[in-house]
Amino acid sequence: MAPVVATAVKDSLIKPIDAPEIKEPAKVELGKKLWFDTRLSKSGALSCNSCHNVMTSGTDNLTSSIGHGWAEGPINSPTVYNAVFNIKQFWDGRADTLKAQAGGPIENPMEMASTHEHVVTVLNSIPEYQAEFKKAYNVDEVTIDQVTDAIALFEETLVTPNSRFDKWLRGDETAINDEEKKGYELFNSVGCTACHNGPAVGGTSFQKFGVYGKYMTKNGAIGVGGLTKNKDEEMVFKVPTLRNIEMTYPYFHDGAVNTLSEAVDIMGEIQLDKKFTPEENAQIVAFLRTLTGERPKLEMPLLPNSTEKTPRPAPFKKK
Amino acid sequence: MAPVVATAVKDSLIKPIDAPEIKEPAKVELGKKLWFDTRLSKSGALSCNSCHNVMTSGTDNLTSSIGHGWAEGPINSPTVYNAVFNIKQFWDGRADTLKAQAGGPIENPMEMASTHEHVVTVLNSIPEYQAEFKKAYNVDEVTIDQVTDAIALFEETLVTPNSRFDKWLRGDETAINDEEKKGYELFNSVGCTACHNGPAVGGTSFQKFGVYGKYMTKNGAIGVGGLTKNKDEEMVFKVPTLRNIEMTYPYFHDGAVNTLSEAVDIMGEIQLDKKFTPEENAQIVAFLRTLTGERPKLEMPLLPNSTEKTPRPAPFKKK
Repeated sequence: MAPVVATAVKDSLIKPIDAPEIKEPAKVELGKKLWFDTRLSKSGALSCNSCHNVMTSGTDNLTSSIGHGWAEGPINSPTVYNAVFNIKQFWDGRADTLKAQAGGPIENPMEMASTHEHVVTVLNSIPEYQAEFKKAYNVDEVTIDQVTDAIALFEETLVTPNSRFDKWLRGDETAINDEEKKGYELFNSVGCTACHNGPAVGGTSFQKFGVYGKYMTKNGAIGVGGLTKNKDEEMVFKVPTLRNIEMTYPYFHDGAVNTLSEAVDIMGEIQLDKKFTPEENAQIVAFLRTLTGERPKLEMPLLPNSTEKTPRPAPFKKK
Repeated sequence: MAPVVATAVKDSLIKPIDAPEIKEPAKVELGKKLWFDTRLSKSGALSCNSCHNVMTSGTDNLTSSIGHGWAEGPINSPTVYNAVFNIKQFWDGRADTLKAQAGGPIENPMEMASTHEHVVTVLNSIPEYQAEFKKAYNVDEVTIDQVTDAIALFEETLVTPNSRFDKWLRGDETAINDEEKKGYELFNSVGCTACHNGPAVGGTSFQKFGVYGKYMTKNGAIGVGGLTKNKDEEMVFKVPTLRNIEMTYPYFHDGAVNTLSEAVDIMGEIQLDKKFTPEENAQIVAFLRTLTGERPKLEMPLLPNSTEKTPRPAPFKKK
């Protein structure tokens, strides 16, 4: 009998990412269209992709995002890539699922400034969209439930497998070099993987930001405590993914830190009470850069045109 | 001898669009990346595609566009689709070529609010871009000349062949129906094709808007006269393309007209001194809808990430 060739995955708290399995292509394709459709916003100019740009890092790479009327967002936009692996969505975890999250920015006056009612009126006025919803969901009238479902199913496909670190995890010893390996060992031994674990190297828990010292910021967000009004949960945030972290600058919930090197030092000091040497810092940064995976190749959607029944956008209308 | 099967093109002032021939794919691919790269703007949030969205109609379908700081643009954004067929670019023709046009919005404080210097500093700080410019243009340092050249070459590929009208022009009698044919004949006989001709059904000349009556508008643009200071050229604008006109609403340089039916009536009255009957109007509108062609299928570009040397965007910085 021939020997069984198994792809052994190394024992690690970090798990490799599998290529996405697309089970419902009609819904995913529809979700992709909705993702890019600026008519979901009041202005007709903002889409999901405005703040979570899949052509770059799944973020807008801004300190905080630009919303309706050039509103300055209160917090750094997290990446949509690998967001499917988060136990909850938003920095404070206020949405349980991608689907629940998707409805939020559409209605936020500081973001897309639209309403769910406006969105469904727009979509129901466009025969091509109606036909696609009929095909994907077997409905004659679109509701926000299918809109957010389709967007979430598209988001589920936005994962980034085949990073050099994943190749190494799967047994390719040459995929990462000695410095990167040292960086990983250090990352593991000092305790980073206690929180940054799983396929997304994060997203699996909520933690106090500033265990051994206060995080100095001008940003007013207080995380979970803002939701629960529980003092003990102030500055408790969802642990962000470190996948593609070299691309998702600037860092932290306030987007105040521009370089990985600074971010690593801050995390060492205030989360682990650990002052990294410059050599250790460089090793960890080198390891972090091995977490960059392959972004999916997407065909650009071609969106159907509005009809004379479609409500027109109102970018400059007050209230 | 077998008979020669020729594809005869019907005699018409309107010419069918040929599929684009891509001669310099490396430049076109690079141009596509630049087209979507928001780092060309001061804010890091606006790209060429923001106002000329190739996923929809090549426009933003707004009355006028939203620029830096949510600035309200002074004029309706023309479609990038088939812009290659325009004799000059912009409504007033102030750019001779697509390349000359491409540099304008980048520097306009009401649009992308950037500078050419900023753009080349950004691109030269990103090794992947440097390598692509090297491959496409054999340069070590990127200049704005190659940036606008690549964007223009990408734009040249954005044409929409195979409309139903083009199929009819090429001999497929069933491609348009009787009402549409009547609409075309009327469009031709009343004189619309005197200006709306060529492959783009427009874009070949500049004309006075309001020959038989003033066009009533709140928009302050005066077209060519604004450039030349020649009184006789006030309200002289480039004749816009009618390709995909059912998608490029709202209409006219002021984007004040929402429906094709209204636009046709206004054109009849103030350009031809002709009052169309409702039946005639419907026929012309039906013909115009046959001018919708096939938008190119594009793979979405995956943009390289910035480095620590890359200047960061400044969306909320004053001045």
